[in-house]
Amino acid sequence: MNKQSSSAPSPRTRIRRLAEKANYEQQTLYAVIDEAYLCNIAFNDGTSTHCIPTACWRIGNALYVHGSNGGRLTKNLLAGTQVSIAITHLDGLVLARSAFNHSMHYRSAVIYGTFELVEDKQAKIAAMDALMDKIAMGRKHEARPGNDKELAATSVMRIALEEAACKISNGPPSDDEEDLQLPVWAGVLPMSIQHGEPIHADNGALATPEYVKNWAQ
Amino acid sequence: MNKQSSSAPSPRTRIRRLAEKANYEQQTLYAVIDEAYLCNIAFNDGTSTHCIPTACWRIGNALYVHGSNGGRLTKNLLAGTQVSIAITHLDGLVLARSAFNHSMHYRSAVIYGTFELVEDKQAKIAAMDALMDKIAMGRKHEARPGNDKELAATSVMRIALEEAACKISNGPPSDDEEDLQLPVWAGVLPMSIQHGEPIHADNGALATPEYVKNWAQ
Repeated sequence: MNKQSSSAPSPRTRIRRLAEKANYEQQTLYAVIDEAYLCNIAFNDGTSTHCIPTACWRIGNALYVHGSNGGRLTKNLLAGTQVSIAITHLDGLVLARSAFNHSMHYRSAVIYGTFELVEDKQAKIAAMDALMDKIAMGRKHEARPGNDKELAATSVMRIALEEAACKISNGPPSDDEEDLQLPVWAGVLPMSIQHGEPIHADNGALATPEYVKNWAQ
Repeated sequence: MNKQSSSAPSPRTRIRRLAEKANYEQQTLYAVIDEAYLCNIAFNDGTSTHCIPTACWRIGNALYVHGSNGGRLTKNLLAGTQVSIAITHLDGLVLARSAFNHSMHYRSAVIYGTFELVEDKQAKIAAMDALMDKIAMGRKHEARPGNDKELAATSVMRIALEEAACKISNGPPSDDEEDLQLPVWAGVLPMSIQHGEPIHADNGALATPEYVKNWAQ
């Protein structure tokens, strides 16, 4: 993907429906990914098409996922299967004056390509550290690091962010001209992710890290 | 799916990884769907596998989606393409004492099968009313209903909830026995969907409906 591209990187990423909401810029894609903890990976294993949610994170121009070595997802991704990945943030419900024009506020990304295994041990450890940084900055220095057995049981995989498209919907209700005067409330009902009060597993015996104290704020 | 089944309805819905989190009960599946506004539909069009997010809702034992007639998703679903659908609610981050045992709280569902068109006009109108009820109960009596042209431009499709599986993760950190005494904070950082203050599109000229007043509470 080009840094400031206004056109799709491939025919299958060209958004046709509500094309005015399409966005092919790298920074938009990065922002959608960086706010997501989960992605949905679609692949066909030769018999069935599957859609599997899994944790994701980004390093540079690649999306990373991990899985246990023997798992179905891991085996298919490492077989070089073509995938499609969807990430969506739902930001609100859009209530128009007509039923037909109701819609949603969202930021979504769809990514195509194939995964490759992160084979180098140091690169694999760095990738897992990046996941830990995403979950809680600084925690990688506190939690017990993965040992050789744990690392060996896990596959870390990455896909280049080359063929992707985003779709962003964040405007006011889009009503037909002749509906604008109808006495029907119109507007947006916003939604966002709220952080709740941390649940301590150790009855407060240990000092609470800053990233836990700051979680619910 | 059986109402209180403890086993998978098919080989491809049998959860192997963390099988203790598997749930094959109908009421669990219904709850995951009823809380979701979006699902991710995976399908293969003969050339590529795709993963497309779209609005979803439930009536009885079927999941419903809709789309514009000429759209890629609609055309593929109506061609009887086998699909896999994922819905996931992320409820929190689980911080264990070891890096390897970090995980998440989530409720997810994966559904397999094929869609069928809702052809009967009254059934189609009832399905669109059910979507409106999900967005805002009572609003279907206020917004201008879809006219014949709008209804004709939209395809409403349903998939039976027969082949599906849920996975629920909601427990405390699962640490290895030998890590339990490590001086590392462990616990859960909860996440949930927050409703924000409604954004009025009409400068308050119209009375605010109860479902809008109650949204942010």
